[in-house]
This record gives sequence, C-alpha cells and structure tokens, in this order.
Amino acid sequence: MLYKDLDRSAQERLLAEIEKKLQTYKDLNLDLNMARGKPSPEQLDHVTTLFENVSMDNFMSEEGIDVRNYGGLYGLIELRRVFGSMLKIEPESVWCLSSSSLTIEYDLLSRLMLFPLPGQSKAWRDLNEVKFLCPVPGYDRHFNMLDSFGIKMIPVPMNDEGPDMDLVEELCKKDSSIKGIWTVPMYSNPTGESYSEKTLRRLLSMEAAEDFKVLADMAYAVHHLHEDPAEQDPVYPLLDLAREEGQPDRVFVFASTSKMTYAGAGVACLATSENNRAWLLPSLKSQMISADKVNMLKHARLFRSLGGVESLMKAHAKVLGPKFELVLEAFDEKLGPTGIATWTRPKGGYFVTIWVYPGTASKVYARCKELGLSITDAGACYPYGKDPEDSALRIAPSYPHMDELREAINLFCLIVREQALLKLLEESRS
Amino acid sequence: MLYKDLDRSAQERLLAEIEKKLQTYKDLNLDLNMARGKPSPEQLDHVTTLFENVSMDNFMSEEGIDVRNYGGLYGLIELRRVFGSMLKIEPESVWCLSSSSLTIEYDLLSRLMLFPLPGQSKAWRDLNEVKFLCPVPGYDRHFNMLDSFGIKMIPVPMNDEGPDMDLVEELCKKDSSIKGIWTVPMYSNPTGESYSEKTLRRLLSMEAAEDFKVLADMAYAVHHLHEDPAEQDPVYPLLDLAREEGQPDRVFVFASTSKMTYAGAGVACLATSENNRAWLLPSLKSQMISADKVNMLKHARLFRSLGGVESLMKAHAKVLGPKFELVLEAFDEKLGPTGIATWTRPKGGYFVTIWVYPGTASKVYARCKELGLSITDAGACYPYGKDPEDSALRIAPSYPHMDELREAINLFCLIVREQALLKLLEESRS
Repeated sequence: MLYKDLDRSAQERLLAEIEKKLQTYKDLNLDLNMARGKPSPEQLDHVTTLFENVSMDNFMSEEGIDVRNYGGLYGLIELRRVFGSMLKIEPESVWCLSSSSLTIEYDLLSRLMLFPLPGQSKAWRDLNEVKFLCPVPGYDRHFNMLDSFGIKMIPVPMNDEGPDMDLVEELCKKDSSIKGIWTVPMYSNPTGESYSEKTLRRLLSMEAAEDFKVLADMAYAVHHLHEDPAEQDPVYPLLDLAREEGQPDRVFVFASTSKMTYAGAGVACLATSENNRAWLLPSLKSQMISADKVNMLKHARLFRSLGGVESLMKAHAKVLGPKFELVLEAFDEKLGPTGIATWTRPKGGYFVTIWVYPGTASKVYARCKELGLSITDAGACYPYGKDPEDSALRIAPSYPHMDELREAINLFCLIVREQALLKLLEESRS
Repeated sequence: MLYKDLDRSAQERLLAEIEKKLQTYKDLNLDLNMARGKPSPEQLDHVTTLFENVSMDNFMSEEGIDVRNYGGLYGLIELRRVFGSMLKIEPESVWCLSSSSLTIEYDLLSRLMLFPLPGQSKAWRDLNEVKFLCPVPGYDRHFNMLDSFGIKMIPVPMNDEGPDMDLVEELCKKDSSIKGIWTVPMYSNPTGESYSEKTLRRLLSMEAAEDFKVLADMAYAVHHLHEDPAEQDPVYPLLDLAREEGQPDRVFVFASTSKMTYAGAGVACLATSENNRAWLLPSLKSQMISADKVNMLKHARLFRSLGGVESLMKAHAKVLGPKFELVLEAFDEKLGPTGIATWTRPKGGYFVTIWVYPGTASKVYARCKELGLSITDAGACYPYGKDPEDSALRIAPSYPHMDELREAINLFCLIVREQALLKLLEESRS
C-alpha cells in the first residue's frame, strides 16, 4: 500500500519498525561507500592480467615512431582508430591528448575562455556573460568546471530522450549569451539514460549563438550492462550528425578508457571538426609535445589483441551487471510498493538515479553518513549543488563487493523509507 | 690565423677549398639531425631494461592507494620525495601533475591569465598589458607559450651567471606590467650554463610587481655530464632561497623525468609555496582527479631500486659525455683558430650554444638544411624568432650516433667557416 494512503497511526507504526532496524545497523559501525563511480578491484585485476599479456618487446608504433621519445602530437593512429570505432568517428578527427578526458574537457573550456573562435572577435572571457545549459541531474565535475571559469549555469530538466528540447530551443533562441550545453549522450551520468537521435539532431541544428557548442562526454560509449544488442543503447555518430545538420563545428566529443582499463591512468581523446582542430592547434602545440605514447601503444596493442573493445567490456559487464540488478531489485521490492520514490533503469554506464520523497534527499544523505554509508552528496548532480526538489540521489554501485552492496542498498532503502515517513507525518501535522 | 686578419686572396683561397669539400658532402645526400634535445635510442633502451626489472606485482602505493583507480590529486608521496630530493625541496611542496613539465608550465600560465592571484583584484588577462623577461638565448617552447597567451616578451642577455641582473632589476623597478621571468637555472637551454646563487637571490628579492613570478624550469637538475662533483653545477634550493629573501610566493619550480626515463611518457612536477598551492587548488581540482599514478608508482620503484637517481644519470652521462666532448673538440680544433665563433662549455644539460660570425646564423641554418643536416632554426632561441645579431645557434648533440654526430659536426664547422668567409668578403667589398 502506498505510504501516502496510510493513516497516521500506520505510518507511525511503520516508522517505529524501521527505526528499530536502523538501530541494529548503527551498532554495526559500517563503513560502506557508494559515492563515486569507481571501478572495483575485481575489474582492475582483470585488466592487469590482460596488460600482462600485451607484448611490449618493441616500442615502435605502426607508423615507425619510437613511443619512448618526443613527437606525435595527435597521438598514435592505431589508438585513434580504436576510439574512432568506439565513437563512430573517422580516426583523423580523433586526437589522443591526455590520460583523462576530464583534463581535455577542462583544457578546452580554458581555451574557449582565452582564445576567440574562428569568425569571433572576442574570447568568451571578454564577453559580459557566458552561460551554459546544464541538463539535470548531471555530472558534478562538469558543473564544478563551468563554475570555476565563472560560467553561469542554467539547469534544464532531463526526460527519457535527453534534455527537454523545447525548453533548450526556447532558451537558446532568445539568449545569445548561452554558449553551450554539457551533455553525456550515452548512459548519462547520473541517470544512466541515453539521448535519442532526435534530441541529438535538434541540439546540433537548433538556432543558437554562432559560437554555441555541444560538449559531448562519451564517457560510457561502450559501457553496456547487457550482451544482447537489443538491451543496449546505440552510439550515434556525432560528427556525422553535426555535418548533416549543417553545423559541423558545433560539437566536441570526449572519451577515455578510465572505465575500460585504469581509472585516470588510461588514455583519453577529443574528437571534433577540422575547423575546430585548426583552432586548437596553436595553443595545443604550446602546451604539449605529445601525451604519453608508451601508454597509448600499450592500450592499442591490448585492444588489438582482444579483437576490439567488446570482449573487455563484456568482462566488465559481467561484474557490473549483477550489481545494477541487485540495486534495481532492492528498489523494486523495498520501495516499489511504497510509492515514495522513482528511479531509472539504465542499460549501461555507472549510475542509477533515484528520486526519493521530495524534500528528503539531503536528510537521506546525512542519515546514510551517520550510519556509515557514503553516497554522493544530495544536490551534487545540480548546478551550484542546488536540487530545487531536494529529491534526486546518485547511486554508484560499481565499487563495493556484492555483499557490501547488498548491505548498503538495504540500509539505503530503509533510510529512504524512514525519511519519507517522517516527512509525511510532518506534512500531515501542518 | 684569424680569418679577419687574412687578406682577401687568402680568404678566397680558403673559401674555394671549403666549397670543394662541401661539394663532396652534397653528393652524399645526408640526412642528419641535431635539431632537438631528444634522448638517443641507446639511452631509451637502457631505461627500458631498467623498467623491466621494476616489480609491478602489486599496485599499492606506500600510502595504500590502488594506483589503478581514481584519487590522489597531488601524486604519490614516494615520487614527490624523489623530485624533492632532486630539487632540494620538501616533498609536501611538490605536486606530480602530468607526464610533461611543459604541460604543467602552460597550465600555470593559463591559470595566471584566468584567475587573480591572492591579494590581486584582476587576473593577468584583465590587465592592459602583461610582459615577461626572457633571458636570451633561451628555450623556444617557453617563448611560444608566452606568445600564445599574448604576453609581451622582453629579451634580456645572458652572462655566465645567468641573465644580466642589473638590467633585470632596472626594468622591473620601472615597469609593473612586467609580471615574470622565464628561467632555466640549471644547465640552461640552450647555453648549458647555470645561474649563480647571487643571481637567483637577486631574482627572488628584487623590487618588482607584487605579482611578479619567477618560473624556474629545472629540466636538467640532475643532468650532469661528469661524475666528479667538482665538474657539476650545484642545485640551489629555490623555495628556501625565496623564503629567505622574503618572497616565498615568487617562485614556481618545474621538473620532469623526460630526459631521465621516457621523453614525454615520464612523470613531471610543480613545486611552489603553500599560498600558491592553495591558489592553484580549485582550478586544479576542476581539471583532474589525478595524473597517471600507475606510471608514478613505476617511476618511484625504479628510482628506489636504483638507490636514487644518480646511477641512472651516470648511465646517461656515459652516453652523452662523449658526444659533448666530440662537439667541443671539433669546435676547438676547426673553429678555435679562426676567431669567427665562440661557444659555451656546459657541464650538463642537452645543448651547446655557438655564436657564429654575426649576420650568418640564418645562412648557416639554411646551408645545413640544403646539405641534409637539420639544426635548430636560427632565431628560435629568441622571442619572436628574432636574433638581432643573427649569430646564436643551438647545437643538440644527444640524438645522433657518434659516427653521425662526427659527420654532422664536421659538416657544420665547414659551413660556419664558409659563411663567415662569404660575409668577410662581402664586408671588405663594401
């Protein structure tokens, strides 16, 4: 029976039961962590085993570059080809520039602040105001980045096809100080849902400032949870779509192997149009001679020896799939009948978003912390940390062992129920 | 006999002899390269052998961090300690942030352009003009970097204790738009000479703009050519000196292992005061979760297993020392008696600077190219590529084999003599 349909005394009785259970958790002095999308040790060990079998008996790239020495600004072609096939982008448009896509993203924004784009007389830093659209809930590090550059963030709600495009188009049409939108088109952080082709085409064709940019973080391009292609979201060829929609220079695509090989010690890339690459080149040349080509070659050989990225990603899915299932089953069973929460059912990525009873997310977060369970801060998935509904929470099931995860998610569901009941009782009093 | 003291006919006779020899070089269709300070394959192979003996059977850092996963923004303490001991800086002040110091340097300048320093109301980008002092000859990539940010470069001549400090002090005293100086205090690129303690103390104590910064690229801190400490230049503890001179926040120090392990695939660091680190932190946190800690751990273990960096650097010196000797002996023998050129005699680093007969450097460069020998572009060691004397050339003897180097340097000396004679004959005509 839905919690809101229970009478006060039934709600109070339920609350008392839950409090009793939570007391036993308190006595356990737990230390559980579901806060960040970190790969588990099991996944990392698997990758290490694979790397051990990669032959590094020579350090010559396909094009005859000794990767231990200087040179090769754009990265090794054999690796650019791997990223290209993941992203459905021609390898020439893909540059491998760092061990982390976050760094490439930050650096791009930094360049946009400092250097005028082709055809523009001013860099963004020299404009009165620069605004970005931020689909919410979204990725906290994207928001921190914008904030650190003083870019004003405008939240736009997500629906199951991506951001609310009617609103996006309306905003961009009337305000040319809106210079971009942060997107995670595949298995979005934190909802796990993907943008539809229609949404992507509207983003790439709509009326907007001439220097409006779509920043597409393809962090989870190949991070499916299921082997059956019918149970996977498709990758859309973003550079092709942009060309087809007549805006070839509108999109910058980012990806990395952080959740394929080693987190932050993998390889990462940027893909964009020829015009954009020409604009990037002078400042890029000032910044680096090349990123770490030894690591690039190791990665290229790993993927080649695997016959592509699929077999690696299947191994990850075998570890991650059951964790997502466990979380969703727990939500279905323990929260489904109560009507106090809704959540996403991702086919890939690293996160599930749950909307707990409005006005209780920050209390759930605090109560979890009190009982030894770290979850992502309430509000973190919103610009300036402000969730107007105080409802969305990001669940990151990847890191804990299954046993720990089971315990963590049971505790979490109890707390969600407790806080909803407290809120319902408070509301019925007033 | 000095070329300038020869009469015209003697000069013409000599020139004819040289032309004849150069013709035989032309027929060889050479392809020799002394353009960039690249480690040789022999050095890289040695490092590879060392890395093969580094045990990576576990990925736990000293502090219990799994280096294959996220976290650890400042880098591994065991590696910060290695850099600290190289630079005579306490490890807490050293952050490992990239695989390349060039990138850390560029990123610092980018931050200085965008974010106001503590106590300042404006970032450099918001000032009417920002100028930097550039000791010349200097490092071309430092100059390109400044130029890409629109920072105006003022050349300052080097003497054998570093930049001309009387001029530096005079300029800084009267012009508060001078915001910094680029330095390579140890085995400077390209002269190979080191700054004296007196020069460093004057740089760190002199009157200058409040936000004046000394950028110290310690690229060659341990890159001695000789084993005998009496034949090595000393490393001065730059952060200590800055504190002693009452300007703790004036200096930023950079270093990397690019010329110790793998070029561009090593590890690199920034060292600076607590105030400066606090200023850096917000933007740094937006840019990265950490640099590549797997590579950091591998490096830390390599240095530990070697008992420090000295034995590695001795092995490099064994390869590099004879190359520098060969170059200097050739200059002494073939150019010494002519009086047409002077050059430095570095105790470390990767370069020798030669001042050829004034007005002939760009011709020497072009003639080398014509005969199949790549050297660093004339003017490259000066801001905006402009050497007012058209005299300085950078010699990078590290990459070629000894045989190739011998051939290259003999050819180079012939061309230097040819161009000097042509110039002398031209001058005596007019």
